[in-house]
Amino acid sequence: MPHPKFKEMERAYGFDDVALVPGDITIHPDQTDIHFTIKSFNFPIPILASAMDAVVDPALAIKFGKLGGLAVLNLEGVQTRYENPDEILNQIAQASETEATPLLQKIYSAPIRENLIGECISRIKQGGVTCAASLTPANTKRLAPIAKEAGMDILVVQSTVTTAKHISKSYRGLILSELCQMMSLPIIVGNCCSYSAALELMRTGINAILVGVGPGAACTTREVIGVGVPQITATMDCATARETYFKESGKYISVIADGGIRTGGDLCKAIAAGADAVMLGSPLAQATEAPGRGYHWGMSHPHPTLPRGTRIKVSNRAPLEQILFGPTSVTDGTQNLVGALHTGMGVCGAKTIKEMHKVKIIIAPAIKTEGKYFQATQNTP
Amino acid sequence: MPHPKFKEMERAYGFDDVALVPGDITIHPDQTDIHFTIKSFNFPIPILASAMDAVVDPALAIKFGKLGGLAVLNLEGVQTRYENPDEILNQIAQASETEATPLLQKIYSAPIRENLIGECISRIKQGGVTCAASLTPANTKRLAPIAKEAGMDILVVQSTVTTAKHISKSYRGLILSELCQMMSLPIIVGNCCSYSAALELMRTGINAILVGVGPGAACTTREVIGVGVPQITATMDCATARETYFKESGKYISVIADGGIRTGGDLCKAIAAGADAVMLGSPLAQATEAPGRGYHWGMSHPHPTLPRGTRIKVSNRAPLEQILFGPTSVTDGTQNLVGALHTGMGVCGAKTIKEMHKVKIIIAPAIKTEGKYFQATQNTP
Amino acid sequence: MPHPKFKEMERAYGFDDVALVPGDITIHPDQTDIHFTIKSFNFPIPILASAMDAVVDPALAIKFGKLGGLAVLNLEGVQTRYENPDEILNQIAQASETEATPLLQKIYSAPIRENLIGECISRIKQGGVTCAASLTPANTKRLAPIAKEAGMDILVVQSTVTTAKHISKSYRGLILSELCQMMSLPIIVGNCCSYSAALELMRTGINAILVGVGPGAACTTREVIGVGVPQITATMDCATARETYFKESGKYISVIADGGIRTGGDLCKAIAAGADAVMLGSPLAQATEAPGRGYHWGMSHPHPTLPRGTRIKVSNRAPLEQILFGPTSVTDGTQNLVGALHTGMGVCGAKTIKEMHKVKIIIAPAIKTEGKYFQATQNTP
Amino acid sequence: MPHPKFKEMERAYGFDDVALVPGDITIHPDQTDIHFTIKSFNFPIPILASAMDAVVDPALAIKFGKLGGLAVLNLEGVQTRYENPDEILNQIAQASETEATPLLQKIYSAPIRENLIGECISRIKQGGVTCAASLTPANTKRLAPIAKEAGMDILVVQSTVTTAKHISKSYRGLILSELCQMMSLPIIVGNCCSYSAALELMRTGINAILVGVGPGAACTTREVIGVGVPQITATMDCATARETYFKESGKYISVIADGGIRTGGDLCKAIAAGADAVMLGSPLAQATEAPGRGYHWGMSHPHPTLPRGTRIKVSNRAPLEQILFGPTSVTDGTQNLVGALHTGMGVCGAKTIKEMHKVKIIIAPAIKTEGKYFQATQNTP
Repeated sequence: MPHPKFKEMERAYGFDDVALVPGDITIHPDQTDIHFTIKSFNFPIPILASAMDAVVDPALAIKFGKLGGLAVLNLEGVQTRYENPDEILNQIAQASETEATPLLQKIYSAPIRENLIGECISRIKQGGVTCAASLTPANTKRLAPIAKEAGMDILVVQSTVTTAKHISKSYRGLILSELCQMMSLPIIVGNCCSYSAALELMRTGINAILVGVGPGAACTTREVIGVGVPQITATMDCATARETYFKESGKYISVIADGGIRTGGDLCKAIAAGADAVMLGSPLAQATEAPGRGYHWGMSHPHPTLPRGTRIKVSNRAPLEQILFGPTSVTDGTQNLVGALHTGMGVCGAKTIKEMHKVKIIIAPAIKTEGKYFQATQNTP
Repeated sequence: MPHPKFKEMERAYGFDDVALVPGDITIHPDQTDIHFTIKSFNFPIPILASAMDAVVDPALAIKFGKLGGLAVLNLEGVQTRYENPDEILNQIAQASETEATPLLQKIYSAPIRENLIGECISRIKQGGVTCAASLTPANTKRLAPIAKEAGMDILVVQSTVTTAKHISKSYRGLILSELCQMMSLPIIVGNCCSYSAALELMRTGINAILVGVGPGAACTTREVIGVGVPQITATMDCATARETYFKESGKYISVIADGGIRTGGDLCKAIAAGADAVMLGSPLAQATEAPGRGYHWGMSHPHPTLPRGTRIKVSNRAPLEQILFGPTSVTDGTQNLVGALHTGMGVCGAKTIKEMHKVKIIIAPAIKTEGKYFQATQNTP
Repeated sequence: MPHPKFKEMERAYGFDDVALVPGDITIHPDQTDIHFTIKSFNFPIPILASAMDAVVDPALAIKFGKLGGLAVLNLEGVQTRYENPDEILNQIAQASETEATPLLQKIYSAPIRENLIGECISRIKQGGVTCAASLTPANTKRLAPIAKEAGMDILVVQSTVTTAKHISKSYRGLILSELCQMMSLPIIVGNCCSYSAALELMRTGINAILVGVGPGAACTTREVIGVGVPQITATMDCATARETYFKESGKYISVIADGGIRTGGDLCKAIAAGADAVMLGSPLAQATEAPGRGYHWGMSHPHPTLPRGTRIKVSNRAPLEQILFGPTSVTDGTQNLVGALHTGMGVCGAKTIKEMHKVKIIIAPAIKTEGKYFQATQNTP
Repeated sequence: MPHPKFKEMERAYGFDDVALVPGDITIHPDQTDIHFTIKSFNFPIPILASAMDAVVDPALAIKFGKLGGLAVLNLEGVQTRYENPDEILNQIAQASETEATPLLQKIYSAPIRENLIGECISRIKQGGVTCAASLTPANTKRLAPIAKEAGMDILVVQSTVTTAKHISKSYRGLILSELCQMMSLPIIVGNCCSYSAALELMRTGINAILVGVGPGAACTTREVIGVGVPQITATMDCATARETYFKESGKYISVIADGGIRTGGDLCKAIAAGADAVMLGSPLAQATEAPGRGYHWGMSHPHPTLPRGTRIKVSNRAPLEQILFGPTSVTDGTQNLVGALHTGMGVCGAKTIKEMHKVKIIIAPAIKTEGKYFQATQNTP
């Protein structure tokens, strides 16, 4: 005798659960177009660099912008808490495994200095590239105007989970629709990971959303608070919200997949799942120019009472340009990410990002088998 | 040509198979309410300490009660079999791997001494906290009155599987409805793991059920007798029984998830799956104050002819208060369990435990990948 | 646009994919009845010992019979090919890893000696127990009468896959219905693993079937020829054939699960999946009295041109009686198999094997996690 | 409230996800017929050797052809770029792990020399066997006539993904229907992996398709560009296209499963999934006679900017004849592949390849458990 169910649960999928199916036509990689736009800003490559201290400092933001992408500077990290952030970054890189978390907790308890916000942004603008910077919702109202004043082009409002409506007794929640009017510059908000939350955010008037909450299967947000949605499902659900919102408003809000992407294959899958662009952290922390000095850590890591994530050693593996554009002799998918996207789109017969959204995805778990499998085929043009 | 099926089998899910989906609103963790009540007893935190010798002795029961939870003393363990249980606990901690099981079998073959039952309970009551204690069904009728006489506030009747109707030739099965009338104090019964068994137990007049039979995927109850239900499914099924029983009687019987919870993430998932509270064993055996001296073992382990489970080394990792409330620099989810619950509820937009019961759960297996994945996001308030 | 499917594929399940759900009533283990009958032969325990040279020789057959089970002697192994089989078994046990397969291929190329068949069977009969012995289909017609003459009580006709109809140019396939009439003693046939094949076998007039073709997930029959059905599904499908055949004929043909059972938990699951009894190989090869001297190998292993399986070291872990009946201090489910079945049936509320057939099974994969999980509960009576 | 889905995703299956179900009749292996035909060419065994430099050189092509199969020579590899390919193959075998990829990139950047194409083909023809050779689509129009002139019997047009319509600005895509008319010899095209792409290819007039894009679960095509379809699903989908095309045209286009096959079990599964033949790479690279000298690499590996795959050590394990026909003492399924196919067909009751297409397949994941499972059964005739 069957009984009623307490609740329904649907299966969600991550990068390692799926694969793309080649198309019925193929296109030469050179013929594929991967540009990304956010309002009047146009970027040749659909890649954002994460607002993390191990990934973006002003110097990297300039270099990344010149290579065609958009780096986001974290306005609540070491760059705005310390006169000499390089010294702090050295300390982090030199800390032992056990020292790392307490050290980070201590470092991030220093106050944000408003004068440093302006300085950082000016430096990026002087580099001649579009400047994007991020704030948490609690600090946005106070600090965003300072950043805009200094020349910020695009504002990113970001926390682990950001919703259109936050309830708090300590401060009045940020009203995103008011913020949009006040700032009059493109606003990216995140992170979110469900259809309904994404749709509500889009209705506030913002210009793009970041998708990704605990997307990695081993992500410690899942260990610590049980929360997280595998990234393929999260991206597909938020892309559906974009379609719904486009039908009701005629406005196209970009969906940016943020988190869990490690390889060119993941990047291709994220786009095929509906993303207009991706935000990369650890793949870029591996660049020789990355401020993390071969280490990577997240912004929930230094939480004073409930730290999540770990400092991981990523090593400095190649210059930024090689990671993005190759050429490479590395065969694990971590280099020539842009070349991989062009090739993947060609094989799938997608000329544009929007055509890539229509490519067939199958559920095909990647079983790790230490070289047991092998596939080798003819050279493809 | 399809043939008839021998029986239908449904998929069941455990903690590592699922994840929680953030809500469309978020709530500041301080604003979430996690209290738990059982009849007139009210507890600030929805956590019980397991009736296991490695977890609870009278001293720990007092400390745990003062921190807001409810510890359950095992009335058939070393505390009531030995005048000097500390000496016995030392022996267990000092035994080698191979000696451990035979030693435990020997230790638990000593008789229960009725006078020690009273002494233990008096000691807990003198500590000024609510006193809960557990007995197996076979001994309940004889020993429960002695415990009540000594001041026991809440009775726990517990065995691997306890049903409303047990068939035996050696003793007349315990009639739970008679027990409820005789004892006139709150009674928690377990363990059960299915809708129908939970519903039958609720109809006997008891006040709460413990859910969990072989919930851990590597639990040796599964290896030894093949029996076990993964804890998310077990909890959801028993929570459904609670709803059914509430509709038919107007009485709300608490569902306590017991077993398999190792982290804050598991705790959040158990509550989202319908639990009103959780019972923790190994996470608390890690406390500096735990009687297990860095080891943990279950009460089916010393079975004289068919032992199940193993003595495992859990180490003394932190004081009890830090395990429950932090702060911590540990990022694997094993410390600040209460903070994790508040944060998880905030992110899911649940103000109360009952609202947490409505949070969306997805099926999202956690693939263990040794640091291959990484997710790092902005600090959340 | 969906296209037609080449073929449908259904999911099949093995022991590690499922678990049993406790019942709504529980029964004291002493009150459960596990006897097994095949025609007029009655066995107190539903366990057969495999017709393998590492498991059964005449001495073990006698001991096993006295303990309540039924051992099957392989009439095409070392016992009937060599005057002094112990010497051969010593050679096998002393061979190195790389020598083992070629040595076995050589050993099993010696001819079967008809006089030794009679001697082996007489020895078992003199031990005062029921004597069962096995032959492959190709040799059955020639050798079965010799074995019957010597006193064999039950004939087992066994090969990797045996069907009611075999097509061959080198010999006329064995007609099972003719064999049944000719032999007039109980006949067990196997192995099979599907509903239709089992039903066809039952209709030939045989008395029991062996179920299991490549049931173990790592079984090399799967590696070598791709064939195999996980044992829970195979057993359920063949049990369904038993029900169908019972409806059409009124005769109850026993289903014996053969292969893949390693623990008490697997045994309980096999019975719950519909088996009337189980046939054990490697669990019994671990007995001190087993002829394999701490090693185990199968009868497809020495195939001259396409060997399958490997000689594995199982060690001599305990006397046969302890493996079957305990007591034990081992907690991995490999000892006290009969106690485990009684306990499992008690927890599931099944008084008899036939009631155990009705117990609920869930799909609950056992993820191996090196002690990460832990479950410990109260002592159960 | 459910929301619309961004796209549907179907589950795809690989070799390790499935197993074959024995038939209701069994057939003696000697009675099974496994021949393969492509137009007027007839091959006793349904096995092609991959057009890879580690697998096929002229000497191996002759030997393989005499053993009954069809080897394909890669016309864009070392044999046609270097006067003395053996010297180059020695260099590759002697390179260290880190040197291998850059060395291969350099080696394959040398130009193809048209005179060497003719020489290679002549040498094979002089060996008295059918000569098949492969070209990429970009070079086919230019080089195929040269190869035909030299005596090539069968043309293979192969790249990672080949479609009936390729869009390129640098060269006009190859029109396959024109090619068929121009060449007037049997043409095999690949690789493809979906119903619709296979159907379009068949409609161009070609004679066989190669199926397989990133079929191995750990294939780096998946890591690098996210593309790949597990081989069982790919083969079944393309076999369905063959049925559709046969209905519409009366022509039977052979489906050749290419990639991911490591054992006799995989071979049997590929045929049961609908393949008429298989193409083998790494299993043959293990032959003593293979030009790879114990190493194996694919033709996408040396891609100048986006290399995929790795050079793997396969060792020289046995002569080619033993790998194909045994006898063997190896029990892991890598030797006696033809014997395995005969035996697998016999056990499944399939007299011919077309009957094997009807054999039942189940979903039964192979969990790797280091010898934990063991199955051993009676000898089968």
